[in-house]
Amino acid sequence: MKYENNRVKDIKIAYIGGGSRGWAWGFMSDLSLEESISGTVYLYDIDIPSARANEIIGNKASRLPEAESEWNYTVSGDIDSALKGADFVIISITPGTVLSFKEMRSDVHAPEKYGIYQSVGDTVGPGGLLRAMRVIPMYEGFADKIRENCPDAWVINYTNPMTLCTRILYERFPGIKAFGCCHEVFGTQKILAYALKEFRGITADRRMIKTNVMGINHFTWIDRAEYQGEDLFPLYRKLVDRYARSGLEGVEKNHWANKEFTSGNRVKFDLFKRYGVIAAAGDRHLAEFCPPWYLKNPEVVASWGFMLTTVDKREQMLKERLQRSRALVSGEETFKFQATGEDGVYQIKALLGLEDFICNVNIPNRGQIRSLPLGAVVESNAVFTKNSITPVLAGGLPDQVNILVMRHVINQEMILKACVGRDLDLAFQAFCNDPLMTLDIRSAKTLFCEMIENTKEFLPGYEWRAE
Amino acid sequence: MKYENNRVKDIKIAYIGGGSRGWAWGFMSDLSLEESISGTVYLYDIDIPSARANEIIGNKASRLPEAESEWNYTVSGDIDSALKGADFVIISITPGTVLSFKEMRSDVHAPEKYGIYQSVGDTVGPGGLLRAMRVIPMYEGFADKIRENCPDAWVINYTNPMTLCTRILYERFPGIKAFGCCHEVFGTQKILAYALKEFRGITADRRMIKTNVMGINHFTWIDRAEYQGEDLFPLYRKLVDRYARSGLEGVEKNHWANKEFTSGNRVKFDLFKRYGVIAAAGDRHLAEFCPPWYLKNPEVVASWGFMLTTVDKREQMLKERLQRSRALVSGEETFKFQATGEDGVYQIKALLGLEDFICNVNIPNRGQIRSLPLGAVVESNAVFTKNSITPVLAGGLPDQVNILVMRHVINQEMILKACVGRDLDLAFQAFCNDPLMTLDIRSAKTLFCEMIENTKEFLPGYEWRAE
Amino acid sequence: MKYENNRVKDIKIAYIGGGSRGWAWGFMSDLSLEESISGTVYLYDIDIPSARANEIIGNKASRLPEAESEWNYTVSGDIDSALKGADFVIISITPGTVLSFKEMRSDVHAPEKYGIYQSVGDTVGPGGLLRAMRVIPMYEGFADKIRENCPDAWVINYTNPMTLCTRILYERFPGIKAFGCCHEVFGTQKILAYALKEFRGITADRRMIKTNVMGINHFTWIDRAEYQGEDLFPLYRKLVDRYARSGLEGVEKNHWANKEFTSGNRVKFDLFKRYGVIAAAGDRHLAEFCPPWYLKNPEVVASWGFMLTTVDKREQMLKERLQRSRALVSGEETFKFQATGEDGVYQIKALLGLEDFICNVNIPNRGQIRSLPLGAVVESNAVFTKNSITPVLAGGLPDQVNILVMRHVINQEMILKACVGRDLDLAFQAFCNDPLMTLDIRSAKTLFCEMIENTKEFLPGYEWRAE
Amino acid sequence: MKYENNRVKDIKIAYIGGGSRGWAWGFMSDLSLEESISGTVYLYDIDIPSARANEIIGNKASRLPEAESEWNYTVSGDIDSALKGADFVIISITPGTVLSFKEMRSDVHAPEKYGIYQSVGDTVGPGGLLRAMRVIPMYEGFADKIRENCPDAWVINYTNPMTLCTRILYERFPGIKAFGCCHEVFGTQKILAYALKEFRGITADRRMIKTNVMGINHFTWIDRAEYQGEDLFPLYRKLVDRYARSGLEGVEKNHWANKEFTSGNRVKFDLFKRYGVIAAAGDRHLAEFCPPWYLKNPEVVASWGFMLTTVDKREQMLKERLQRSRALVSGEETFKFQATGEDGVYQIKALLGLEDFICNVNIPNRGQIRSLPLGAVVESNAVFTKNSITPVLAGGLPDQVNILVMRHVINQEMILKACVGRDLDLAFQAFCNDPLMTLDIRSAKTLFCEMIENTKEFLPGYEWRAE
Repeated sequence: MKYENNRVKDIKIAYIGGGSRGWAWGFMSDLSLEESISGTVYLYDIDIPSARANEIIGNKASRLPEAESEWNYTVSGDIDSALKGADFVIISITPGTVLSFKEMRSDVHAPEKYGIYQSVGDTVGPGGLLRAMRVIPMYEGFADKIRENCPDAWVINYTNPMTLCTRILYERFPGIKAFGCCHEVFGTQKILAYALKEFRGITADRRMIKTNVMGINHFTWIDRAEYQGEDLFPLYRKLVDRYARSGLEGVEKNHWANKEFTSGNRVKFDLFKRYGVIAAAGDRHLAEFCPPWYLKNPEVVASWGFMLTTVDKREQMLKERLQRSRALVSGEETFKFQATGEDGVYQIKALLGLEDFICNVNIPNRGQIRSLPLGAVVESNAVFTKNSITPVLAGGLPDQVNILVMRHVINQEMILKACVGRDLDLAFQAFCNDPLMTLDIRSAKTLFCEMIENTKEFLPGYEWRAE
Repeated sequence: MKYENNRVKDIKIAYIGGGSRGWAWGFMSDLSLEESISGTVYLYDIDIPSARANEIIGNKASRLPEAESEWNYTVSGDIDSALKGADFVIISITPGTVLSFKEMRSDVHAPEKYGIYQSVGDTVGPGGLLRAMRVIPMYEGFADKIRENCPDAWVINYTNPMTLCTRILYERFPGIKAFGCCHEVFGTQKILAYALKEFRGITADRRMIKTNVMGINHFTWIDRAEYQGEDLFPLYRKLVDRYARSGLEGVEKNHWANKEFTSGNRVKFDLFKRYGVIAAAGDRHLAEFCPPWYLKNPEVVASWGFMLTTVDKREQMLKERLQRSRALVSGEETFKFQATGEDGVYQIKALLGLEDFICNVNIPNRGQIRSLPLGAVVESNAVFTKNSITPVLAGGLPDQVNILVMRHVINQEMILKACVGRDLDLAFQAFCNDPLMTLDIRSAKTLFCEMIENTKEFLPGYEWRAE
Repeated sequence: MKYENNRVKDIKIAYIGGGSRGWAWGFMSDLSLEESISGTVYLYDIDIPSARANEIIGNKASRLPEAESEWNYTVSGDIDSALKGADFVIISITPGTVLSFKEMRSDVHAPEKYGIYQSVGDTVGPGGLLRAMRVIPMYEGFADKIRENCPDAWVINYTNPMTLCTRILYERFPGIKAFGCCHEVFGTQKILAYALKEFRGITADRRMIKTNVMGINHFTWIDRAEYQGEDLFPLYRKLVDRYARSGLEGVEKNHWANKEFTSGNRVKFDLFKRYGVIAAAGDRHLAEFCPPWYLKNPEVVASWGFMLTTVDKREQMLKERLQRSRALVSGEETFKFQATGEDGVYQIKALLGLEDFICNVNIPNRGQIRSLPLGAVVESNAVFTKNSITPVLAGGLPDQVNILVMRHVINQEMILKACVGRDLDLAFQAFCNDPLMTLDIRSAKTLFCEMIENTKEFLPGYEWRAE
Repeated sequence: MKYENNRVKDIKIAYIGGGSRGWAWGFMSDLSLEESISGTVYLYDIDIPSARANEIIGNKASRLPEAESEWNYTVSGDIDSALKGADFVIISITPGTVLSFKEMRSDVHAPEKYGIYQSVGDTVGPGGLLRAMRVIPMYEGFADKIRENCPDAWVINYTNPMTLCTRILYERFPGIKAFGCCHEVFGTQKILAYALKEFRGITADRRMIKTNVMGINHFTWIDRAEYQGEDLFPLYRKLVDRYARSGLEGVEKNHWANKEFTSGNRVKFDLFKRYGVIAAAGDRHLAEFCPPWYLKNPEVVASWGFMLTTVDKREQMLKERLQRSRALVSGEETFKFQATGEDGVYQIKALLGLEDFICNVNIPNRGQIRSLPLGAVVESNAVFTKNSITPVLAGGLPDQVNILVMRHVINQEMILKACVGRDLDLAFQAFCNDPLMTLDIRSAKTLFCEMIENTKEFLPGYEWRAE
């Protein structure tokens, strides 16, 4: 890395999961649009052809006239060479069979036969647990490799389950400088901006909406929101009154959005009416953290105006992205730069010392959220400065909300222990404690065993541990 | 009260709910069998004829030759005269229409239409909540009257929900000297004694089994059990191994027991296999504190070898007891003294300074259980000495069990707040947080409103409070 | 207040203690040098002639060509009119007889007869306690008046004892938006900048030295210091090695400095050698928080290279400032603008939403310092944004240092209680607990009574409260 | 060990420091007067002749007609054979040169040259620290040997500093079953009994006075005291009013007492007047835990009616006891049985399951004292039952007292760390933090080094550790 005139050159970024289609392209776009940084991105992926494709796409894009900075992309055949001396490590993987949704199909759909519905299935619920069981052993490996190859690198996690992925990195390598990023809060900031527009005629970028964020990833809450020092809660309350029944669609759209993922925010509005604080994630995520209040069955889901994301749909979307990948590689399609609206590049700039930045982030709780246990990975605001992330004091969640969040925080610690110990008994206990699990204990066991069986190739070493 | 030669005379006991059939007779029996104390019991009940009947029964019994001490029974027409200057206050009431199970029928059976089954319905679950809503306003009145008439009296609560009844007394009159008593732990001590007999041929009274008790009423746990300094956990483990499938019946029987209330302890044994500590209450109670693991539907209940207590059955039992009451009053039947095995009279003796006594008791947590919040009413052992109850340090519950207990502790504090504030919104939130509640949120609301309607005469002042 | 083109006009500042000589002039200077804000300063002081003098001085200065913004100064005859509708309130007073050091003379010098030496005598030690006893009743009045006249104003305290003055404002009016400012940390940042110069040849402004500040006012500690992301502790260690014996003078000089107040930082360096963290206040202050390690007697003080500030000296300085006041009023001398280097104006700008700012500040602990009790006023960094101060997480003090700080934190809470209750018994207990108090208990009582007597006019209502 | 008819035979007791004169004889007396237990005491001492003498004395005594049980005494040449298979281990040693007070002379008298006076010098203060530095390495060895030879034995510590001796046993061998015993609280119970006699004419044994004990050894406090359920605080208050000036002598006398050790309890009474709770140790001990309030100089000490225990006096007492030892060995003098009033034998009986017993004891805090940190060794009441000690909940110390106790608790943890790490820098910090240390830091260093030099033979491995 070299500092020159308020720019930093020769940055080395290791990208684990660098064969990603879609997300990777957004990241490439953001990098190229930022003139003050440049360097090389080392793409590492067990799916080497996809990494190769991204190498080509990235380098092509980098040479386009719209690119503000110079970035090189190169595939690393092994993780060590990708990580060696890295300044930043990006991790964004899908734990399961390459280019298939075999395991995710089990995560999401196996429980449906038992009457348990999940709208995403990658964070909590039975699906989130199984995904954690697959991904945590992989992350233990990443942590070891990072300690070995680039212990001082900043590690940015984008993989779900976000909380547990970040948590295991610290568990395995306590000295790691890792944090997790997620855009779910931004959608809520956009809704707040919408309220400002609707009731006051003021147009504001979501970054101008200052929010105090608290909770865990995908189940974050906002208890203070301001625009230019003005409290936005009264406006939000008016918005909820107006749209709680009809729903409010299309507001938080981003270039990822599609029908499958949008909602009318009616779960979010219902939670506000019940608790008085703003749930800051998409309805599909929020619903999964509650008892089956909004997910009891497909009719209930429909009545709340959001959708169960099917794996069929995911497969179809993958197919489209693969096609687009081929088109970008062949040159049939030209890479189009478009800022994603994500904070990743701002965070990198701040950590390089180029410009201080405050945003929400997932890191271990050192007291920033008073009502949650120390050490648990939580999401709240932090100040990013040169080589340092310092949480600002977020305060505590209201009791009634804290009880909902705590259930998951405690259960996630149990999942962590189960995964680190490869202990199926403990994993089953955590499975039974999830609010979505409404089965009798024997049916729960049957479902659990079925899901374990479905994904067993990715569960090496897991055993029933109790006598 | 007069102390004379290691005896105490002229003790004044106020008995709120003194028209009770059955439980009152056991208490009379225990009193009369204890030679070192004597005095007068003031029976107060809104059901005056029942109180009158007990006055007659008690005084008759007192004159029988088997009586070791002299006790007088007298009906108090109003609560003030019953309490005025009392040394002890017993509270044991059924909150609802006199000699009817109208409200309890709703508590227990209304949720069944929605697929929610409760084996008792008086502690937690939707039924426990509604019962708490009825009883807490009454207890606020009792606390006020006690402060007015006998602020230094020791108050012994036997009413369910035990935890909340004891908790509201302290909430309303922080200086009160109240505690809650429950025999559920004794059954588990009997099972431990049974293991001692089965595997070692040793016969021991349950009082010789020393246990470290921790948790909340009806969801208490034992993490140390000894007989003569010997650890009983290995024996219990053998017992569980032998009877986990077949069940073990008839061991913890007492003179209350009947088929409706017994079980094969298979829930208790299953919990031990999962958590390694002993759940110390009957299966009917334990099951209600868990998600619908054991209560999913009647078939699941049957498969675990316990029964749903129907209100029809309760009505039939009441009929029998009313008949017996008439027979005792008329002299057709003679009162039979028989020690109940309860600790009440021992506790009274200890508080009078006659003999120190250690037993489990429900009082606010001042640190005796490290893993539960201060101030919550918890159940653990305490030393009873003259005019004083000092908890012994119980330690902390294992994490995996603590998470189950905490859910209820936190929810009960929410119920308390809802009841004190007569706030239906908050009550509904607590309703939805119960582990047995597996409905979607709108159905939950419908059920809640129906249950409120069913019991509305006993809910004066309750209102929807949110704007 | 009006916002116009990134400027704010018509700001109303109430200045309690507005007759101040010296400090007020610096504040006037800073205000006039900041082009983006303007308005009126209402000067309130029980010493009306001094306030009048400042009114003249301020308005004259404001009309000088160097002034970047327009400020009006006007004397308020009563505190209500000064505060009514204020946007900001500055409090900077000397509690005692006007234009005299009668009480401070007792604070500082009365204990010397008993062998107790204080280098400042306004924060802790016997002098700090007596000063707190005088000032807290006054601050109770200020808090009441602020609640009445301008409850939403930001209140900036500069009076010592800083911690207790800020603490009582919150105690009396929990909704107050108050914070305490102190420049002591800046001196240490200058020393760190000096180390950077000495060992690396780099010139840096003290504001570029990023420090993590923790502790209580005048006894703050730095456990991380960075310049451009580089850890400065190795450089500081080298500095300490080089100057621990000889002392390092003149580095942290500001326009207040004079021989009386400077030191060779040998106490600071000695503390670093013993504890490994940087004590961030002047030696005169640091020494007073310790047992008589550095203050045992004047010889010991001299041997550590700092001075006992005498009240004679203070009187002489006052005389000079009075003379200068007259000269400025008469026009004999022209007001000279010079930035003080203080943060006050930056903080005001940030609270107005003009530019976010991070600096150290004294506010109640909401968890920003893990090792100190919640609610105690502590000093650490915070983010100033529009109408909001959010502490950043400072972490915890090392155990060995925390024990020293805790003694004062606990004792200050006792002083608060003593002053609020006007309780001489409790005040005497706090007096005896101070680390500088090495007397036998009877001599301590004699000294305490003597000091009370000396300052009794300012202690209305204080009484011996114990039976 | 064999249980027979409510008696236990063949108990094996290892006595480390078994050459003790005086204390050992009392213990022998108590053992022989208890008919329900018998066995063998293995005497181990580095002073073998003294152990031999006690062997003879013990066996002679055991054959006297007054002996109610049979005990054998036998010298163990090495610690392993003494401990091998022991049921109980008694530790009561004097860390220093055999039959000399060389090191204790330095502990107590070296600081006097610097104006620091200690009335005992074996618990806190500079002397207590140095003694801890000598004794902790020895106790590390004891803990290792106990783990090796008798990990299940109950270990009773009588050595000072009591808190640190007990603490290091747990630090070194966390599974140890150790507790510390001290009779200091008994004297206060006797004073309470005296008040009962003086004001009410009632004679009561000190064991009938029920007290709630809290704090650390030699600085324990009583916040509740009852006789037959009656609050004794009003009587104690009257006693204090009557004797605070004149002193009250001779009340708490035991067979150890002599003029050197008695006092008029005026320090105890003064503390009660200031804090409203009863300090439950002798004045000589209490004074050492405070700043030099009562120990400023010999005149102050005299004015408070207690004495500085000189080492000359200790030497003279030792001489007398040696003479008595010779007389007992030779048969010139016959052993006289006399109950010491200590609790040791009752505790042993309770741990054997013969009779439950509640008394004050020193063990790690598991929450029994809310206001002190977990893990610190504290003194409060506990229930002794078969093979188990369970603390009863003591509550918390009043804030004003807690601050005094906390200083020592925290400092003792620092001493522990210093001793375990053989770290002179850290030991010196602890030295400077003691409330009796009123020196400037350089004089403190000189004194510390002198005291280290005086006792250096017993400080193997200690080094200055800071760079």
